[in-house]
Amino acid sequence: MSHIKTAILGASGYTGAELLRLLEHHPHFTITALTGDSQAGKAMHDVYPHLRHRELPKLVKHTEVDFSNIDLVFCCLPHGTTQEIIAGLPAKVKIVDLSADFRLFDVAQYAEWYGHEHRAVELQKSAVYGLTEHARDAVKKARLVANPGCYPTSILLPLLPLVKEKLISTDRITIDSMSGVSGAGRSPKQEMLYSELEGGASAYGVGKHRHTAEIEQQLGFMVSFTPHLVPMTRGMLSTIHVQGDAAKIRAALEAAYKNEPFVHVAATPPSTHSVRGTNLCVMSVTAGRLPNETIIVSVIDNLVKGASGQAVQNANLMFGFDEATSLIATAVFP
Amino acid sequence: MSHIKTAILGASGYTGAELLRLLEHHPHFTITALTGDSQAGKAMHDVYPHLRHRELPKLVKHTEVDFSNIDLVFCCLPHGTTQEIIAGLPAKVKIVDLSADFRLFDVAQYAEWYGHEHRAVELQKSAVYGLTEHARDAVKKARLVANPGCYPTSILLPLLPLVKEKLISTDRITIDSMSGVSGAGRSPKQEMLYSELEGGASAYGVGKHRHTAEIEQQLGFMVSFTPHLVPMTRGMLSTIHVQGDAAKIRAALEAAYKNEPFVHVAATPPSTHSVRGTNLCVMSVTAGRLPNETIIVSVIDNLVKGASGQAVQNANLMFGFDEATSLIATAVFP
Amino acid sequence: MSHIKTAILGASGYTGAELLRLLEHHPHFTITALTGDSQAGKAMHDVYPHLRHRELPKLVKHTEVDFSNIDLVFCCLPHGTTQEIIAGLPAKVKIVDLSADFRLFDVAQYAEWYGHEHRAVELQKSAVYGLTEHARDAVKKARLVANPGCYPTSILLPLLPLVKEKLISTDRITIDSMSGVSGAGRSPKQEMLYSELEGGASAYGVGKHRHTAEIEQQLGFMVSFTPHLVPMTRGMLSTIHVQGDAAKIRAALEAAYKNEPFVHVAATPPSTHSVRGTNLCVMSVTAGRLPNETIIVSVIDNLVKGASGQAVQNANLMFGFDEATSLIATAVFP
Amino acid sequence: MSHIKTAILGASGYTGAELLRLLEHHPHFTITALTGDSQAGKAMHDVYPHLRHRELPKLVKHTEVDFSNIDLVFCCLPHGTTQEIIAGLPAKVKIVDLSADFRLFDVAQYAEWYGHEHRAVELQKSAVYGLTEHARDAVKKARLVANPGCYPTSILLPLLPLVKEKLISTDRITIDSMSGVSGAGRSPKQEMLYSELEGGASAYGVGKHRHTAEIEQQLGFMVSFTPHLVPMTRGMLSTIHVQGDAAKIRAALEAAYKNEPFVHVAATPPSTHSVRGTNLCVMSVTAGRLPNETIIVSVIDNLVKGASGQAVQNANLMFGFDEATSLIATAVFP
Repeated sequence: MSHIKTAILGASGYTGAELLRLLEHHPHFTITALTGDSQAGKAMHDVYPHLRHRELPKLVKHTEVDFSNIDLVFCCLPHGTTQEIIAGLPAKVKIVDLSADFRLFDVAQYAEWYGHEHRAVELQKSAVYGLTEHARDAVKKARLVANPGCYPTSILLPLLPLVKEKLISTDRITIDSMSGVSGAGRSPKQEMLYSELEGGASAYGVGKHRHTAEIEQQLGFMVSFTPHLVPMTRGMLSTIHVQGDAAKIRAALEAAYKNEPFVHVAATPPSTHSVRGTNLCVMSVTAGRLPNETIIVSVIDNLVKGASGQAVQNANLMFGFDEATSLIATAVFP
Repeated sequence: MSHIKTAILGASGYTGAELLRLLEHHPHFTITALTGDSQAGKAMHDVYPHLRHRELPKLVKHTEVDFSNIDLVFCCLPHGTTQEIIAGLPAKVKIVDLSADFRLFDVAQYAEWYGHEHRAVELQKSAVYGLTEHARDAVKKARLVANPGCYPTSILLPLLPLVKEKLISTDRITIDSMSGVSGAGRSPKQEMLYSELEGGASAYGVGKHRHTAEIEQQLGFMVSFTPHLVPMTRGMLSTIHVQGDAAKIRAALEAAYKNEPFVHVAATPPSTHSVRGTNLCVMSVTAGRLPNETIIVSVIDNLVKGASGQAVQNANLMFGFDEATSLIATAVFP
Repeated sequence: MSHIKTAILGASGYTGAELLRLLEHHPHFTITALTGDSQAGKAMHDVYPHLRHRELPKLVKHTEVDFSNIDLVFCCLPHGTTQEIIAGLPAKVKIVDLSADFRLFDVAQYAEWYGHEHRAVELQKSAVYGLTEHARDAVKKARLVANPGCYPTSILLPLLPLVKEKLISTDRITIDSMSGVSGAGRSPKQEMLYSELEGGASAYGVGKHRHTAEIEQQLGFMVSFTPHLVPMTRGMLSTIHVQGDAAKIRAALEAAYKNEPFVHVAATPPSTHSVRGTNLCVMSVTAGRLPNETIIVSVIDNLVKGASGQAVQNANLMFGFDEATSLIATAVFP
Repeated sequence: MSHIKTAILGASGYTGAELLRLLEHHPHFTITALTGDSQAGKAMHDVYPHLRHRELPKLVKHTEVDFSNIDLVFCCLPHGTTQEIIAGLPAKVKIVDLSADFRLFDVAQYAEWYGHEHRAVELQKSAVYGLTEHARDAVKKARLVANPGCYPTSILLPLLPLVKEKLISTDRITIDSMSGVSGAGRSPKQEMLYSELEGGASAYGVGKHRHTAEIEQQLGFMVSFTPHLVPMTRGMLSTIHVQGDAAKIRAALEAAYKNEPFVHVAATPPSTHSVRGTNLCVMSVTAGRLPNETIIVSVIDNLVKGASGQAVQNANLMFGFDEATSLIATAVFP
């Protein structure tokens, strides 16, 4: 059994912790280094008591890691900081980057949406956008995979097959998504306090959320995308309004995903509960009330298929393993 | 000071209890009778311990009430059961009906959406659809007010002025709404258990929710309306995608509601927290990303402006009082 | 009708916002100044959108307030900062301090529990511990009322009458309390993030919570007090294990509180839902399983009877008004 | 690899669904039959959509199962109904019963606490109380294991070693526990609705919860035990007040559990988050404020170590497997 020496950069964030959960029983990826610059020197269980029973390396600064000894890096750093760090890694290290830093192929687009110039323009050219089910061949050969955003994952999985088969109009696709709070990360912010969120819902980033750029890049046209924050920790639901025939759309999605371990077409609109803690994306197709309207509802766990799970799925492919390795799980319900 | 003898039919449900909360300090409406057929004989505080400190009549069967002694009835019964009971009330009794029974003017429409013939066809003709801000004159003269549904209230308040002023296309208006759980009432249902809802979100009634009929009746055209259930007890948020100029839409809504005590146009998308426990509707207007797209976000408390609060507002008008009587309140936040 | 010019110091915190909610319809207390040093210059509705419909003064620094024009100060500042500010107020200003700064009569005790010397030792001598139901006469005459902590309020209201009447042993009284999260305030802290708290419970401050000092001061003996954090925003529940006869204890509490507007003895253990948003304390008395054991369960809303509501109750008394003025309300349930 | 043909009786309840989650990757236990009398004929994914991706037998009535073909039964039926069904199983079938039916050795005690005579008195005599860490030898040889209740599991794991080593007084041990809502099961009950529970906490069964009998049976003396319901789906926390030396107690618990995979002694009071979805019990030991007082805080996931996880742990032992088989997992946090 091969052992892939694995580092997680930014392991003190939620996606880092989730990688550790998902990799607990992975037969090949061995956790060799964990970085967290502000928490360097601490044991992981000081930062995350739920990891108390795990044997894990201490958190160190990323400058303390001997990357010549590392085969695989999961990069969970905030966008912006990631580019230069990744650019400095040895050529033999394979990387799955969970930040937004390498998702936009056009660095001008990046600069526009993220407010500063891209700092690793050459490296950007080699990055593969890792929506696994639609990028397997490229991912297998990639050195650097840009792991998709959570919203784009929930939206592109249903839409890409329909666009490819020209089953829907590209005009005025309207998407309202709602997300669990964990997507905002673990840094303390007033608006993410429990007391500010329990029992309430809101829209945010209306007309300008950064994930729009990613969605439009992959689709090739503009969409209306509005995210909402609802009082739950995990889970993401996208309700997608398209113009096209519901029966054909359903048939196309069932055909596209019939052999996929992680993407399922359900008979009725799914709850995010069905995917909590799993790498699944479940979607439904229902005829709407307006002429030719079809409503697709798609759910994922934002921390798994929307982040750390898809990252493991990509890493599995990059190293030639079955992509489902260590990822098959039943949702934690209730 | 006048005393209006007031009965609440179906007082053991959530909207009944909420009426009692809102009427606690009302200077004119005196609670004279409370009915709850399955709980008849019990004190209200046996059914709702939070009413422990209130002096209230016992719950009785509706057949035990002497309606000749009643001036005002709030009817909180389930749809279907309401029609015959209301039809049997003395002519002098004024009624605010919180069920769906008298909201659809066309009894054929009622039969189609609710699955049975209307049982009070004559009475239906006299009912006023009580979206207060848009029906004041009619409500003042009405004997029977059909209190609007919660979703329609959150949707019609922003849309009606825009339709009236022809500021938006009537084509493909797309509405995704999310509701708190209390809208499902207090009858035990598996899918409404705490364990089934905490930490998850779902769409329901996709393409066929009954409130669609009400919305379309008032607008005069078809819309796409998809409700969602999110893990919160109170609150409702509607995200409405229209085609029209955002600046003009904002100006029109500000003009329409500038003197309204309960409808406000906010500078940024509101949270349902801003209206919890209050009769307010708060809405925002933001330019979308698609050409000519405008996104309106509207929030209410489903139990107040979406039910019992608007009912009191209507009853205030029906009896010649200031419509805001006993309804001015600050949201309970956090 | 008299108008009492009222300032709230630290109005940008949760207890400040709650005071504004509770005072909305107060006939005498007129909000004249609001301070919030870090938010100075902002409108209250920028800090709390749910106050959008209220006409309120801007937030200013406390040094900008002309206190010669103020009759009443509610002080909602963090402990430690409060003492010097209050010491500098004109003698004619009456003060209700919601911090812990003046609750401990023994400044040595204060230094021990709070980690620094008391900075207003003389002023401390004049402070009245404002557990209203047990300090009415002193509160009426007080210039400075130290508003009790939330845990002490929920614990002392049931225990004080029993100690006074010697109905319970003072030996090994054991109290486990659970609190809503809003007690931790609005400053961003990682451990108070939504994602850190939803769906989980924990004990904290085991054996050393600062409110212990207050409880023991008022009781005159030591107790075992363990607070817990549970996933709810508002509400506090204390389960108190005493040795004494349940029937006598119940009778004594019913007698002590039979005419009180805000303290009720219930037949069965109450939920915090029964008091949400209100100034009520509801308690139950049940015989335990051990010989002579009695279990008292007591609930309050930590932000109302545990903070801002009791503060208003005290202020009402200090100015000669009915203590219930503007405080009678039904809980927001569901 | 051996294949143990496994039936789950009452698979449509939460503990049944949780068994299916925990057994997904079990190398030996093969799901052969699932019963659910009221849901018979349905696919499991009709009852639990989150099992959509699993290949599972249909739900049938228990009378339809050919038990001659079954090696292992997990019995998840409500107490009372279980006894006769289990009594009718073939002698070669091994049984883990998750109900309360065989936990009390004294059938008179059973009759007193559960309100009816025991219906399988002979079988009761052979039942082993399966608190695994304290009953390994007996469980290995047992045909029928009575799986402990959730509260007793969280309480007995810390207390049994202390009682055995006489480190604590048996006088007036006081336990306040709080539970997630899933313990109440999936049958619809008004008091378990989302709207009734969000944002509130309460005590229940004060002085008389049935789990008291189990706790006292295993300890050999009476205790004060008060359960509380808090707004979370999973998780259980017991705060246990004992008289004894904290340092000795900590040392004894560390010694007792130092090699245990599922029981850990933590340095600080644990959150239920640390065990969500896992078979872990984590406990802390802190000196209290009263003379000789020690406060133990113990957390489990009520559905795992408190039910289905411990059931699998016991079944593993009964069939000679490593008891941790398929149970090692990291908590789902956040």
